[in-house]
Amino acid sequence: MEVNKHISGQFNTELETIRSSVLAMGGMVEQQMTDALEALHNQDVELARQIVENDKKINSMEIAIDEECTRIIAKRQPAASDLRLILMISKTVTDLERMGDVADKLARMVLKNAGGRTQPPLVSLDSMGRLAIKMLHDALDAFARMDVEAAVKLYHEDDKIDRQYESVIRELMTYMMEDPRTIPQVLDVLWCARSIERIGDRCQHISNYIIYCVKGKDVRHTKINDIQSLE
Amino acid sequence: MEVNKHISGQFNTELETIRSSVLAMGGMVEQQMTDALEALHNQDVELARQIVENDKKINSMEIAIDEECTRIIAKRQPAASDLRLILMISKTVTDLERMGDVADKLARMVLKNAGGRTQPPLVSLDSMGRLAIKMLHDALDAFARMDVEAAVKLYHEDDKIDRQYESVIRELMTYMMEDPRTIPQVLDVLWCARSIERIGDRCQHISNYIIYCVKGKDVRHTKINDIQSLE
Repeated sequence: MEVNKHISGQFNTELETIRSSVLAMGGMVEQQMTDALEALHNQDVELARQIVENDKKINSMEIAIDEECTRIIAKRQPAASDLRLILMISKTVTDLERMGDVADKLARMVLKNAGGRTQPPLVSLDSMGRLAIKMLHDALDAFARMDVEAAVKLYHEDDKIDRQYESVIRELMTYMMEDPRTIPQVLDVLWCARSIERIGDRCQHISNYIIYCVKGKDVRHTKINDIQSLE
Repeated sequence: MEVNKHISGQFNTELETIRSSVLAMGGMVEQQMTDALEALHNQDVELARQIVENDKKINSMEIAIDEECTRIIAKRQPAASDLRLILMISKTVTDLERMGDVADKLARMVLKNAGGRTQPPLVSLDSMGRLAIKMLHDALDAFARMDVEAAVKLYHEDDKIDRQYESVIRELMTYMMEDPRTIPQVLDVLWCARSIERIGDRCQHISNYIIYCVKGKDVRHTKINDIQSLE
């Protein structure tokens, strides 16, 4: 997509700045998720506290970027692909913020379990979490290049997370059935698994926005085969 | 808020039309949730199928309204409160669509359990579901009147849903601990409880958008006390 050919150089700079802000925000969410998995693995209370603290910064970024989107629309009155870009950015930051909440949630579980005698079975979250981080990374990459092909590939990555999620759920169910006393603790892990799985869905949203922005077609609720035929 | 004083009567009509569309969409989500609770209560497979079918209409409404928002922005180049209204509508329909997904999810659980010998403990979902429908109704009401005071009240309604949710979870946990063979089935109910609880959060999002639209202040991630002081 030609985002660079603007009569107003100033407008062009504004668009570039806001795209960079989204990537910075996304990079921070990625880091938070990486830290959250580390905090879970090492039961690192200090790191968990830091993650909870950092989440506020991500929240502020969402609001700041969204405000900037509104300001640009009001001031520049963009049309066609520029308007689509700004509207998709406004939606993207909401998804990024919610993905940030997942890291916050994992960190809070570390804090909740700190010092407890028994630890819930967290191992299963690790590889699933890594898949989610990889997918977020790829989504941000696709966003940076406004790459439709890369965006479409993300739908398949989400299938992997979904399969892993199903296997985690089965594993945790067996765990609970074998020792029902663990149910309350295992449920916490289940909620975390669920929210990691949602990262995959949110990355798919970003794919949808990229396709909308480049192709001008809203593919939310469109089947994957029909999306692929757009390429 | 004065949404009616526009130089262009045509623009005014467009804004009114789009607000009505949002209310129609919201009304449909409300009906879907009401039907979903009935389908759960009576294990009504036919009604459940109808709900799954209707969900597609809600998805189409989301896309159609969002497209209309983009079209209006590009054509009318609105500023200030009109622009905020259109942007908030674009966000509102996404939340409404996700609330529609909850009805779809409940309906699919009815279909999944149809003809099964044992039924999971669904009673607890009923009163929680009713609270959620009431809250959605109030959110749509606040939206129709762009009523900040009513929007703020919604935060307290969400507390009720949260409390009920906690009690449902405790109940279901006891159920599982007493008879671990029920775990897989009860987990399905847990997911549904969780998604009903999320309706409360989504109604709060609508509150946030109303306040943003009327007051021009983005209150996502703002504490309730600070929001109340805006009134």
